[in-house]
Amino acid sequence: MISLDTLNAASNVEFAAMLDGIFEYADWVAAATAHAKPFASVEALHNALMQTVRGVSREQQIAFLRGHPALSATAFAPPGLTAHSRDEQSALGLSALGPDAERFTKLAAEYNTKFGIPFIICARRHTPASVLRMLEKRVTGSLDTEIAAAIDEVHFITRLRLVAAVSGPGTPRTTGHLSTHVLDTGRGRPAKGVKVELLRDGVLIAAGMTDKDGRTAEALIEGEPLRIGSYELRFHVGPYFAGWSPPVSDPPWYDVIPVRMTVTEPEGHYHLPLLVAPWQYTTYRGS
Amino acid sequence: MISLDTLNAASNVEFAAMLDGIFEYADWVAAATAHAKPFASVEALHNALMQTVRGVSREQQIAFLRGHPALSATAFAPPGLTAHSRDEQSALGLSALGPDAERFTKLAAEYNTKFGIPFIICARRHTPASVLRMLEKRVTGSLDTEIAAAIDEVHFITRLRLVAAVSGPGTPRTTGHLSTHVLDTGRGRPAKGVKVELLRDGVLIAAGMTDKDGRTAEALIEGEPLRIGSYELRFHVGPYFAGWSPPVSDPPWYDVIPVRMTVTEPEGHYHLPLLVAPWQYTTYRGS
Amino acid sequence: MISLDTLNAASNVEFAAMLDGIFEYADWVAAATAHAKPFASVEALHNALMQTVRGVSREQQIAFLRGHPALSATAFAPPGLTAHSRDEQSALGLSALGPDAERFTKLAAEYNTKFGIPFIICARRHTPASVLRMLEKRVTGSLDTEIAAAIDEVHFITRLRLVAAVSGPGTPRTTGHLSTHVLDTGRGRPAKGVKVELLRDGVLIAAGMTDKDGRTAEALIEGEPLRIGSYELRFHVGPYFAGWSPPVSDPPWYDVIPVRMTVTEPEGHYHLPLLVAPWQYTTYRGS
Amino acid sequence: MISLDTLNAASNVEFAAMLDGIFEYADWVAAATAHAKPFASVEALHNALMQTVRGVSREQQIAFLRGHPALSATAFAPPGLTAHSRDEQSALGLSALGPDAERFTKLAAEYNTKFGIPFIICARRHTPASVLRMLEKRVTGSLDTEIAAAIDEVHFITRLRLVAAVSGPGTPRTTGHLSTHVLDTGRGRPAKGVKVELLRDGVLIAAGMTDKDGRTAEALIEGEPLRIGSYELRFHVGPYFAGWSPPVSDPPWYDVIPVRMTVTEPEGHYHLPLLVAPWQYTTYRGS
Repeated sequence: MISLDTLNAASNVEFAAMLDGIFEYADWVAAATAHAKPFASVEALHNALMQTVRGVSREQQIAFLRGHPALSATAFAPPGLTAHSRDEQSALGLSALGPDAERFTKLAAEYNTKFGIPFIICARRHTPASVLRMLEKRVTGSLDTEIAAAIDEVHFITRLRLVAAVSGPGTPRTTGHLSTHVLDTGRGRPAKGVKVELLRDGVLIAAGMTDKDGRTAEALIEGEPLRIGSYELRFHVGPYFAGWSPPVSDPPWYDVIPVRMTVTEPEGHYHLPLLVAPWQYTTYRGS
Repeated sequence: MISLDTLNAASNVEFAAMLDGIFEYADWVAAATAHAKPFASVEALHNALMQTVRGVSREQQIAFLRGHPALSATAFAPPGLTAHSRDEQSALGLSALGPDAERFTKLAAEYNTKFGIPFIICARRHTPASVLRMLEKRVTGSLDTEIAAAIDEVHFITRLRLVAAVSGPGTPRTTGHLSTHVLDTGRGRPAKGVKVELLRDGVLIAAGMTDKDGRTAEALIEGEPLRIGSYELRFHVGPYFAGWSPPVSDPPWYDVIPVRMTVTEPEGHYHLPLLVAPWQYTTYRGS
Repeated sequence: MISLDTLNAASNVEFAAMLDGIFEYADWVAAATAHAKPFASVEALHNALMQTVRGVSREQQIAFLRGHPALSATAFAPPGLTAHSRDEQSALGLSALGPDAERFTKLAAEYNTKFGIPFIICARRHTPASVLRMLEKRVTGSLDTEIAAAIDEVHFITRLRLVAAVSGPGTPRTTGHLSTHVLDTGRGRPAKGVKVELLRDGVLIAAGMTDKDGRTAEALIEGEPLRIGSYELRFHVGPYFAGWSPPVSDPPWYDVIPVRMTVTEPEGHYHLPLLVAPWQYTTYRGS
Repeated sequence: MISLDTLNAASNVEFAAMLDGIFEYADWVAAATAHAKPFASVEALHNALMQTVRGVSREQQIAFLRGHPALSATAFAPPGLTAHSRDEQSALGLSALGPDAERFTKLAAEYNTKFGIPFIICARRHTPASVLRMLEKRVTGSLDTEIAAAIDEVHFITRLRLVAAVSGPGTPRTTGHLSTHVLDTGRGRPAKGVKVELLRDGVLIAAGMTDKDGRTAEALIEGEPLRIGSYELRFHVGPYFAGWSPPVSDPPWYDVIPVRMTVTEPEGHYHLPLLVAPWQYTTYRGS
């Protein structure tokens, strides 16, 4: 990693060289921003770079966006168990879309033909399914809305790259957090030993067991963006209630409690508790 | 009671005579409405009478309202245990307002001076406290808003009188309903034997015990308007939980569960369940 | 249908003839019970018939049970959409068990070899999966526990047949009830227009739409036993919340709310409400 | 404060002198425990002192207990607003019991006459009302149960004194914690600006306002034992809901939400969240 101090102390040419690759195929962005040194924070640096992009003419912006590669197979995340794993960045490709892959390819071509720019999206903030939904929506837009939308996505793409490359104060938040908590309100204490699974778009991506505080040892997701999409927690409370002494019912009324929600803020903090008694439960978005 | 059929079959003069007293000090209302006979429903009859009032000139309306007596001591409801009791109609007077009685008298005089009409309100739809709150609000109005507000109150006053005097199809709803239901979600069944008390403006007005279905034998209030005001249910769950075998905690975590709410629809249906486990409860407006 | 009065008035021989088929391959049961006529209720008649079975010697009971056919393919219920349908009685066979069919056949043979009686179970009170689970459990029993268990199942089998064949007072309850209710606690009223689906062992068996009272027009299951097994309600609240004006979030936090529970009383009354606000929900076994 | 190291390094005579006053009127306890130095923790020191008390003969224990002063007026806590205040230790006397003071005096005399020892209780762990309830219960005991109960109370009394006098590792927990958290589940975020009041035995003892995280700036009680008794939280949600834009109802359905619970563990951790939507709320013992 390069430190912000190093960047601030560098010459304009060195500065641009060190930021090579942040704005793919557009080294001019760093070069045109270098004069604004020094930057008080990593966030200020990123804002300045984006200000440069937003400040050029519509024609230059179109040329800039046209320089981006079409969303390729390598941009898609693997659907499997990937929490805390660097494998997440590896390529699984459009196959994750299954039967929808063909539809994606067709719409992406249609988008390119209609607007003259590729469909740009920060894939690490989305699941394959939500990438497809976004494409379905954006293909109906106008060139103006799409220039704006594409630059917003460049904002997210380059922010993730910059945070991975530059260390320093004021680093913007680029990761989310998803955790849970299970309380047994029939006995007035945390529920210990409840297996919790997390699925995204139907695929298991994390799992844990609640401890004596009713929490999993680690957050189910942290240190990475929460991909926009449909999530499901599965609380395996059946074995927990079967272990009550005396048991409340045999078999327990609830075995697996599924809770589904739609995550829309990849950098958000999602705390999803479960309050469970033998014949009732309550779940909510906590804080 | 007079039947709607009798009214419909009467001469205009007889019709007006039979409705004497519905519009206090304003027999002309019934007389001027008689020509619209026959009426298909009690509600249609009431609407026609009010249409007569709403149809006359502003000057006639002011004279009509001026003819009403000032809200007197006899208009106030007793604050005590009155559910299902005809005593509720009896006079307790302003004393129920306690230290606020003087404030009421002062504001009522101010209202009369400002608008030239008395402060008119359907007292049976209010507690003394809410009558005072309404007066505090309405004294800040204009003559136009107050003519409209007073006629709306005449609507409620005469509707209650008409429903008490005339039988027939299409009787408008003039009474409310307040009931409860207690479910034990720690054991998955209705909670039997929970004492439930209902207070209005801090005064006990009804009580019951839940049966095997978790309900009181009768609704806590029905057959009369729910006076606008602050209500509190008190669920005495402590003895209930102490009777669990085995007991969940000694003494139970919850002893009395109070639930307070603001009733604003005197003719409304309020169902107020309690879902209770040993260390959690949920309450809501049901249906 | 035969009326209870007709049975009571019949000769012993006629009585036995009219009940032919209730106790398959064991006409002696009805014959030996005929002397106890008249019966005050259908339930009393059934109890008397079962009393006859329970009163004979262990050897006679074994011979009686041995006379029953092995649980055949025709005993299994179809897994598909069958609510309110007579198709439910039609034969789908062991194929519903899928890969477990072989295991079932092997265990059933093992059971027969071990105890010398076929595995008897009232299939209409079970799903194929729970039939298999029961077999797995019962194959580990002793001959004494299995004679008792098999006679209990004969109780359920013949009760269903008797209720279908004989009309009269005191008919025992042989059917269950499963219903729901959706309340919007963000707006304080029933949630209208929420699609609700019911799955059993993962297969859709009923569906409905909530009306202005937050209920489906009919119970999701009634008029038949609730097969012992795992059920899942799916509340499609996403479109409902999307229709709020103003919308609370776009897209709504909850789209589909699944609620899973284990039904153990085929003749039980299951009321399963959902209290839902935009970011919280509560579900419980109601009454 | 004396450090545990100083105590451990002291001579036996110095040790006893330094602990003078921990066991009132019974300096022999410290003297007889001195030989067991050094102590690894403050808790180990306290356990050793109590072991000395528990190890002497029944006659010596009775003499020891007889040496304690009767529970005097100075032992009672003030009922008023005392959180975080040293005033709590000041004397308010039996007047806090109001009309029950006479009953207390009578029962305490009866207790002394019956058992020959004064009624000993750790008053700082109780409200006046619970002191009276304990007395009512203990006066029905036997001398054996009362010797045991009184020594248990000496345990609590001396532990509080020791923790106030000696610093060092392994200090036992002698204080409790009571906090709250308000979540708005109609909007999916913490409820900011809700006034929360805490009453004990009907008297206001703490208050706070929720911040942007839905919590009060400080715990409502901490740093002192939670006196055994009845507590009530009052959440003033009316102004909060009135501030919604758009408002959900005028006036809000809930104005003040009272939650009452019975605290039985003075050293316990009580977290008491409220999940509130416009027409529903849930409360529970959290963690």
